[in-house]
Amino acid sequence: MRVLLVTGNQSKVAEVRDVLKPYGVNVEKADLRKFEVQGEIEEVSMLAARLAAMEALEPVVVDDSGLYVEALKGFPGPYSSYVYSTIGNEGLLSLLSHDDNRAAAFRCAVSYVDPINRVERTFLGEVAGYIRREPGKPGGFGFDPIFSPFGPNGVPLSEMSVEEKNAISHRGRAFRKLGEYLAARQ
Amino acid sequence: MRVLLVTGNQSKVAEVRDVLKPYGVNVEKADLRKFEVQGEIEEVSMLAARLAAMEALEPVVVDDSGLYVEALKGFPGPYSSYVYSTIGNEGLLSLLSHDDNRAAAFRCAVSYVDPINRVERTFLGEVAGYIRREPGKPGGFGFDPIFSPFGPNGVPLSEMSVEEKNAISHRGRAFRKLGEYLAARQ
Repeated sequence: MRVLLVTGNQSKVAEVRDVLKPYGVNVEKADLRKFEVQGEIEEVSMLAARLAAMEALEPVVVDDSGLYVEALKGFPGPYSSYVYSTIGNEGLLSLLSHDDNRAAAFRCAVSYVDPINRVERTFLGEVAGYIRREPGKPGGFGFDPIFSPFGPNGVPLSEMSVEEKNAISHRGRAFRKLGEYLAARQ
Repeated sequence: MRVLLVTGNQSKVAEVRDVLKPYGVNVEKADLRKFEVQGEIEEVSMLAARLAAMEALEPVVVDDSGLYVEALKGFPGPYSSYVYSTIGNEGLLSLLSHDDNRAAAFRCAVSYVDPINRVERTFLGEVAGYIRREPGKPGGFGFDPIFSPFGPNGVPLSEMSVEEKNAISHRGRAFRKLGEYLAARQ
């Protein structure tokens, strides 16, 4: 089957295509507007998917992600990409400079809307870890260089290969749940 | 004439009522949802006003405000209330702790939609000033204690009376423009 992914980011399309291929799902980039409401990531992804599905009249998928820092009450959360584009990694590190609690998680919500069969589902993925004292090498998206998932070696997300990152990332996890769901329905 | 103000904040209703009374405009609190999109404050206020007007079927007004800090590329901007509720005044001060450029402005967008006469207008108000090194006394909304408008005495917004604040604030200025517009149409 085919689903349309609503995003302006071509490298995300390639990443999601790799994740969903084993489930027999063919991902195409949709040329539709991603409408974004203020709210939790699962509200953002679901409303955007509903509006895109009404336009496309076929199954669509929208994801939304955020970095949640425990010591900052979840900031920057749903507004991570805006916050990254203004204060950046440097700003986030300075907010935590006197804080020993470095706990953080990346969360992803993937919403699937099939307007023909009237199906709506949201799948959540999370990767827990910590905000590093020093950034790793550049790479990946946004805050990836200052985040290391919990694990034996403390590698930042930005230094992982696409395959390594897909295996453990919030986005990889959420999209695999979608893949399992769609494979079971086919 | 009467307009419905879409807000959950009763003290804002009182503030706006005072500002619009001299223009012959009677402000009532609307019991309607304020739908908030991600975007610039004038997009947030206009879309919220359109949706509320479709529900109310009479003239409505919605305002949205933000604090724009020059050294932080406009952060927190349209997400000021979320940012205030997470990192607060302390977080914003720490982001600027090594910065001599303290320039900032509060901006307000007021959108008026009259669904009967098919009128839509947005009015902007701004107050320029600076982020203080130390917070003033608590008071007002959100970041008011750490912002002083340019002027002779450097008083923070949080320490002004409602009348003083209305006279120079971003919100007062935007709503007076609306008042002038409505008075000219009556």
